[in-house]
Amino acid sequence: MHYLPGQAHGLPGNRASLADYQATHFQFAVRERVATILLDRPERKNPLTFDSYAELRALFRALAYADDVKAVVLTGAGGNFCSGGDVHEIIGPLTRLDMPGLLAFTRMTGELVKAMRACPQPIVASIDGVCAGAGAILALASDIRYGTARSKTAFLFTRVGLAGCDMGACALLPRVIGQGRAAELLYTGRALKGEEAERWGFFNRLCEPDTVLDEAQAFAASLANGPTFAHGMTKKMLQQEWNMGVDEAIEAEAQAQAICMATNDFHRAYHAFVGKDTPRFEGD
Amino acid sequence: MHYLPGQAHGLPGNRASLADYQATHFQFAVRERVATILLDRPERKNPLTFDSYAELRALFRALAYADDVKAVVLTGAGGNFCSGGDVHEIIGPLTRLDMPGLLAFTRMTGELVKAMRACPQPIVASIDGVCAGAGAILALASDIRYGTARSKTAFLFTRVGLAGCDMGACALLPRVIGQGRAAELLYTGRALKGEEAERWGFFNRLCEPDTVLDEAQAFAASLANGPTFAHGMTKKMLQQEWNMGVDEAIEAEAQAQAICMATNDFHRAYHAFVGKDTPRFEGD
Amino acid sequence: MHYLPGQAHGLPGNRASLADYQATHFQFAVRERVATILLDRPERKNPLTFDSYAELRALFRALAYADDVKAVVLTGAGGNFCSGGDVHEIIGPLTRLDMPGLLAFTRMTGELVKAMRACPQPIVASIDGVCAGAGAILALASDIRYGTARSKTAFLFTRVGLAGCDMGACALLPRVIGQGRAAELLYTGRALKGEEAERWGFFNRLCEPDTVLDEAQAFAASLANGPTFAHGMTKKMLQQEWNMGVDEAIEAEAQAQAICMATNDFHRAYHAFVGKDTPRFEGD
Repeated sequence: MHYLPGQAHGLPGNRASLADYQATHFQFAVRERVATILLDRPERKNPLTFDSYAELRALFRALAYADDVKAVVLTGAGGNFCSGGDVHEIIGPLTRLDMPGLLAFTRMTGELVKAMRACPQPIVASIDGVCAGAGAILALASDIRYGTARSKTAFLFTRVGLAGCDMGACALLPRVIGQGRAAELLYTGRALKGEEAERWGFFNRLCEPDTVLDEAQAFAASLANGPTFAHGMTKKMLQQEWNMGVDEAIEAEAQAQAICMATNDFHRAYHAFVGKDTPRFEGD
Repeated sequence: MHYLPGQAHGLPGNRASLADYQATHFQFAVRERVATILLDRPERKNPLTFDSYAELRALFRALAYADDVKAVVLTGAGGNFCSGGDVHEIIGPLTRLDMPGLLAFTRMTGELVKAMRACPQPIVASIDGVCAGAGAILALASDIRYGTARSKTAFLFTRVGLAGCDMGACALLPRVIGQGRAAELLYTGRALKGEEAERWGFFNRLCEPDTVLDEAQAFAASLANGPTFAHGMTKKMLQQEWNMGVDEAIEAEAQAQAICMATNDFHRAYHAFVGKDTPRFEGD
Repeated sequence: MHYLPGQAHGLPGNRASLADYQATHFQFAVRERVATILLDRPERKNPLTFDSYAELRALFRALAYADDVKAVVLTGAGGNFCSGGDVHEIIGPLTRLDMPGLLAFTRMTGELVKAMRACPQPIVASIDGVCAGAGAILALASDIRYGTARSKTAFLFTRVGLAGCDMGACALLPRVIGQGRAAELLYTGRALKGEEAERWGFFNRLCEPDTVLDEAQAFAASLANGPTFAHGMTKKMLQQEWNMGVDEAIEAEAQAQAICMATNDFHRAYHAFVGKDTPRFEGD
């Protein structure tokens, strides 16, 4: 192998730590390489604002270069996930914007989803209570969703006179739960309850409210202890192959997996197996 | 806002009423802006014929300009949805056509599905009893499907020696119920029963035979009372983003939703919310 | 019709029999036009090796011209399906290859999946016990999957430090079970048990271990007795339309189905129906 341990991925200019990042519009903490983003205006059920949108977008863009963060947990305070764009702080001002201003807004929110899909870290959403509007999109744009039976996920754009095509919902939701079920949720804005969400494949696991965040963090930690370079490639290819023919996807995977076979983690796994040991992955 | 109420959408040349449309090969009625299409040859389980195909295609194309229809219900008479292409009136003549004639037929049936996907009104299928062949495709091409436990949906093209690739089935069905389940139904032509159809996401709701049409019409009415311009955009984007990468879909939605934010319905919703009132949408 | 029975499909140079094919690295037998491929190193749970990969790839390529095989069953000996790439015979050597060598390997495995998707015969996987790594991909690349409750399907590439994007998994798996569930399986490598596999649409049927192979073969035989030219078109179009817009897919199906309407099997079905008889399809 031609790769030195610890230098395998990341040019110096490509690296930046987020361990000490001080968030302004939500809480952010990194523990054992798992970053937890906590939306924390519980008295309003954790709405998004112009400022929190912009900071989240910037944070997810920065995560692409943060090699001290290997997985992300996204959650909300006070028994709710996120109530979406605040009526007074977002909807009201939007009614007074001209078209370039409106497009600047919808592009900003879309950029947040693009950034979530582009960062190499898997994102685990921990969802309790209200998960509505743009909040439901944040859940949808995550890689894995843990939720509770009492949670209510509602793509409720239609309730404010808008279309269901917000931040990528018409592309993402059908691939998660199927085209027919997605259409119903987007046309009606009705709340999807936890058990139905699990049954439909929107939630990966149904948890108790007391433990959902712990379980999401434990799952994220298990990913962070895995072959994180390879996880980043899995995430990239799930995105990259979204719109390819099968044969083209297979060639793309042949190249991507050949890259992963040139990593130290692949060698560590093989030698651990031969030595009847458990591999310790280092993400390079 | 630069838009006058009542003139927001629709050039004069783009508008045409369907309220008084007299159908020849099925029943058609508009009540409270919901059009109901009733296939009504119950003694034959409502088969399609060359004539009914052509009239349905023309009707769905006309719906694109019918601003007095905001949602569509598609159903059949006498406890059955539709038995598909009639053996005597369609299959027989097809065996005597040359290749240009065959292609003209498959294009005509395909055009019906294109027209159903292109009209801005959500289509709600109310399905009881037999739903077979091209009838199953009409259900599949609808946006929402309400069905009964006793209904039997069968993509039975294989039973007449044909392929499952009829009127878009190989594209549409996998996205509704998943690739593996779709393959089984298309290779075998077996009947999908109601409970399984709901479990797989083909049916959005399982209803009693006595009430399935009422429930479908009530659901269509609720959509017709919603922000119908935005609903049309939801439908358009579900179609438009079928074959886009995620980032391109997000940009497409940023533009589409910015358009919806310039509608009066968005403003109505905001002002209703601020006034602790229920919004009355008008579709402009 | 301008087509002679028995000469409808297949130039002379395009035909080759596989009935007497003697496989070297697995068992192969054709009975009543159903080929059964049995991976048969039960003491190692039927791993794949460089040699068996290459022979499988060549066999599936040859199936495209084998007009005496109309369906394929893929299974493993001794109560297991396939344990994937052998650690000693594949993983070890891979750790010593340079980049062109690695890419040659990932392309070879990818070519096997391409060949499975390109042959016209439907492939029915009969899955019991271990179904892991590349073995899980062979199951995924099949058209239909019959499995047992005790089977364990694991996309465990991550366990050896690799990415989930192996042999097309990031393209194929999300369309079978949904994007969220696919992400979880690919990030974790955890075993999917039989009941969950059926619930998610990965398995088409859950069988007893004693009967799963018989049921898979019976199902394959029923397909082999059907309109096999049309089945090949169904398989082709499920692949071909993977990455098309809806309207383009509908036109593609109009052409494909018009071709099928010019086959003798379509005529046989019509005449059988008129004569109140059961059609006997011959695949031309």
